[in-house]
Amino acid sequence: MSAPKVLAFDVFGTVVDWHGSISREAESLIPGIDGDTFASAWRAGYKPAMADVRSGKLGWTKIDDLHRLILDRILVDFGIDLSEEKRRHLNRAWHRLDAWPDTVAGMTRLKSRFMLTTLSNGNLGLLANMAKNAGLPWDLLLSAEVFRHYKPDPETYLGVAEIFDIQPSEVMLVAAHEDDLDAAKACGLQTAFVERPLEYGLGKAAAKGDLTRFTYASTDLNDLARQMGV
Amino acid sequence: MSAPKVLAFDVFGTVVDWHGSISREAESLIPGIDGDTFASAWRAGYKPAMADVRSGKLGWTKIDDLHRLILDRILVDFGIDLSEEKRRHLNRAWHRLDAWPDTVAGMTRLKSRFMLTTLSNGNLGLLANMAKNAGLPWDLLLSAEVFRHYKPDPETYLGVAEIFDIQPSEVMLVAAHEDDLDAAKACGLQTAFVERPLEYGLGKAAAKGDLTRFTYASTDLNDLARQMGV
Repeated sequence: MSAPKVLAFDVFGTVVDWHGSISREAESLIPGIDGDTFASAWRAGYKPAMADVRSGKLGWTKIDDLHRLILDRILVDFGIDLSEEKRRHLNRAWHRLDAWPDTVAGMTRLKSRFMLTTLSNGNLGLLANMAKNAGLPWDLLLSAEVFRHYKPDPETYLGVAEIFDIQPSEVMLVAAHEDDLDAAKACGLQTAFVERPLEYGLGKAAAKGDLTRFTYASTDLNDLARQMGV
Repeated sequence: MSAPKVLAFDVFGTVVDWHGSISREAESLIPGIDGDTFASAWRAGYKPAMADVRSGKLGWTKIDDLHRLILDRILVDFGIDLSEEKRRHLNRAWHRLDAWPDTVAGMTRLKSRFMLTTLSNGNLGLLANMAKNAGLPWDLLLSAEVFRHYKPDPETYLGVAEIFDIQPSEVMLVAAHEDDLDAAKACGLQTAFVERPLEYGLGKAAAKGDLTRFTYASTDLNDLARQMGV
């Protein structure tokens, strides 16, 4: 298979550490809270909320608004009362997620050879604020918001190829999540798995399937760059 | 008026020199052609083509495809026969436009304080290839392709504010074209005029109206950065 032209990155978990960042922000804002449990609960609402949009049960709703719906619900579950101002501030923590230690260096290497775009369910404003805050050197930001479809809908993976007027096989999805990569592969994209053992917090690494089905399996973005010869 | 948060840039003419770049590419591909006249003719088809999309006469068509429609027509007018491969190559010249000499330095200064996005009628793939080729340090690429509306439709200017969840007055359009700036101003955006006397070629500077109606009037992007205190 020839080298891809465009690398499309999953963002939450693959490029940035949502669990650590949200834990820290929650603990700094809400005295006595267990940040680890809170971050996990918030993220657990994410896929069901998107599924409601994907099924049509909910009209098009961007991630900022889905995050806020889930936040309001888990605050009740946790028995926490927060002002509107603090809720807004906390909801924007998703715009301020920290990159993994290898992210900027690995991206910079890959950018010298390939076109780097996000392919994230996060909305464009969130992705732009995150990139500016964390210094992520994207060539382009693509989002579910552009395609009006959330991953793993095929419109998102195929949409990247359409944007660049290239074949799906000339695009490679880079992600820490096997279900995302499997959906991309079914659309004809190349795939690169990136191991992120701390994505869900310490001691909660996800079980892994057979990674040989992906074009690359890497331990971080520097390792991926090395394997791709840059 | 308080400082804007987001600077949204017109691209063709404001950030890059389409006339010089297209002239040079045409002259290098087609022996004996008058690049200046050819570039002007190609660009002259641009607004009418977009007007057909804006009016609904033509369904949504991205700029790459509009450029190709116009190219095929002017090649007939110029009596030039080009192979399909050369037509494709020439059409992609719009992805390879050179920046004005002050562009990268001025953008880099402005980027240290503001969020910088394109607000261009060019499609995303074109803008991403152009940015990579010319080293343009955008934070985000926004295009008519995202809004499915061409400038000067209000959906484009207001769309930038919606993407960032801010007020229209917190966005400033940066452009070399008064009609674009007037349309943005009517939507409540701040406005910065950038003088580009060579946009249409030597000795063809557009007549200027009263520039005091804009928030800033600048001679180039370094001058705009200086006026904005960065």
